Amino acid sequence: MFLIAEVLRGGRVESRHAGAFVVADSAGKIVLSGGDPDWAIYPRSAIKGLQALPLVMSGAADRFGLSGAELALACASHCGAPAHAATAASMLARAGRDVRCLECGTHWPSSGSAARALAMAGEVPSALHNNCSGKHAGFICTAVAAGQDPSGYVAPDHPTMRGVTQAVEAVMGTDLGSAAPATDGCSIPTFRIALRALATGFARFGTGDGLPAGFAAAAQRLRAAVAANPVMVAGAGRFDTEVAQALGESAFVKVGAEGVYCGALPSLGVGFALKCEDGALRAAEAAAAALLRHLLGPNPVLERLAGPVLINWNGIEVGSIRACLV
Amino acid sequence: MFLIAEVLRGGRVESRHAGAFVVADSAGKIVLSGGDPDWAIYPRSAIKGLQALPLVMSGAADRFGLSGAELALACASHCGAPAHAATAASMLARAGRDVRCLECGTHWPSSGSAARALAMAGEVPSALHNNCSGKHAGFICTAVAAGQDPSGYVAPDHPTMRGVTQAVEAVMGTDLGSAAPATDGCSIPTFRIALRALATGFARFGTGDGLPAGFAAAAQRLRAAVAANPVMVAGAGRFDTEVAQALGESAFVKVGAEGVYCGALPSLGVGFALKCEDGALRAAEAAAAALLRHLLGPNPVLERLAGPVLINWNGIEVGSIRACLV
Repeated sequence: MFLIAEVLRGGRVESRHAGAFVVADSAGKIVLSGGDPDWAIYPRSAIKGLQALPLVMSGAADRFGLSGAELALACASHCGAPAHAATAASMLARAGRDVRCLECGTHWPSSGSAARALAMAGEVPSALHNNCSGKHAGFICTAVAAGQDPSGYVAPDHPTMRGVTQAVEAVMGTDLGSAAPATDGCSIPTFRIALRALATGFARFGTGDGLPAGFAAAAQRLRAAVAANPVMVAGAGRFDTEVAQALGESAFVKVGAEGVYCGALPSLGVGFALKCEDGALRAAEAAAAALLRHLLGPNPVLERLAGPVLINWNGIEVGSIRACLV
Repeated sequence: MFLIAEVLRGGRVESRHAGAFVVADSAGKIVLSGGDPDWAIYPRSAIKGLQALPLVMSGAADRFGLSGAELALACASHCGAPAHAATAASMLARAGRDVRCLECGTHWPSSGSAARALAMAGEVPSALHNNCSGKHAGFICTAVAAGQDPSGYVAPDHPTMRGVTQAVEAVMGTDLGSAAPATDGCSIPTFRIALRALATGFARFGTGDGLPAGFAAAAQRLRAAVAANPVMVAGAGRFDTEVAQALGESAFVKVGAEGVYCGALPSLGVGFALKCEDGALRAAEAAAAALLRHLLGPNPVLERLAGPVLINWNGIEVGSIRACLV
């Protein structure tokens, strides 16, 4: 068992989180790791940046004149704030489609305040509020630009989704097709990929090194879009947004469900992948921040995110989370 | 590492939860266990039933004419539905106090639908919506009936809270005073107690065996109140409520924050305590249901709670949780 974070209360450990992580360069050389680097995980939403590559590489983004905010939303797990829903709607409108095309399902905004604001306005959520709506709107833009019927685009064998899977395979340098995929929360396929391959893929996504022709420029454009529109990738006060605001283009980090973080650190020529074994977001966040601080050097935002203070309902400090992977 | 639950996606393990549990009789004999029985944990809200004993034993419950629903709420971690807030307010009114006396802090109802309903009505939450408001209202009733000023009742050295701690010590047969307590989410002290002692204490709470004079009748009254008012102890569709609805007085189970479950099974003469090491509620719930099923025999509600199916936003079955502690 490799510990990645501890939760303290009254100065004593109350709960503990195990996991594993890999930092690798674009050639697949492991620079740093903890736990089993060959652990095959479902990266879930952590690879949305990679899954958005066909949107840019196919020419769909240019054809529909997608803005930087829209490209950032294509890489996002957003909290369902009004700007997120409006941007997803705008992406669909550029392709001549609307919310009825989305196949991600509907849920209340993951932001409690956004959910309550929607309820207070007498509204109910639509698929635009699904945290994956930007990714799905990107898939629909890709399909329409290619002259494909987007209907059924979430299925593994839809031509649009096949293109998405092929893009991920090209970046990872691995064949994902040998085992049947599982189904993600938003209904698209999710494949098991080893932490080592994920870290290597993100090193390539960050540097362009080792990528097939055309990939590097698209990856750079998506990374720049997120850095320039940090609120789009998650939401105000959310981890991925705070890191993008603090680090700009020197880091591209993305959360995935069940305790996953992947990221690219272009200036260092490396990528990383980590997973909290029990799926806890709080541990994955603290561990990702500590890893970024270890690799990039001190930063007040990373300092806070790597060791969050736990405050109770009366504002009393009752404990903290302590990353311990590096 | 002792596994208590696995999370599957597409038929493969995506995440895993470690932990430990003990089933013991009222003499402290371990009947069944997994992991370290001497692991000292913070039981958090799992011992609210024990903490409510002074409310009954002091005569406060009778003096103020508390109903069964009110006694159940004193043992509850409720979801902030209107009936929960109204019942907490009623308890305070019986003691001539109101919401301003509560020192638990304020948060939006933990039930998303209850929170949105409050927002839609143009209201904001009060301390009555705090999941611990019933426990706190019980403390205030206890203080007022004893002629104490309830102000500051959350402090470890307030006479009311000293009485609560002494009641827990009497049931556990252990001295909690040797180490400084930590502070719980609702600001009262929380003490580290070994799983073995918690299981033994709950066996006593369920049977009366081994308890000092006066405790057994009070424990029985609180258990009966929860069994007769299952929605009060948590909320419609919540685990503790569903178990109380399914099992009645044959089981008293209570969740605590950070993956804790404690319970009493009077017909078997045992109690149990379990903790998920990473603090995950989903694993603690599945493990508690599987343990109850193992001890009490098959039951369709326990079957469902021990192996929840994971459904995504399109209603597609994408995985499941599988308890594996017994």
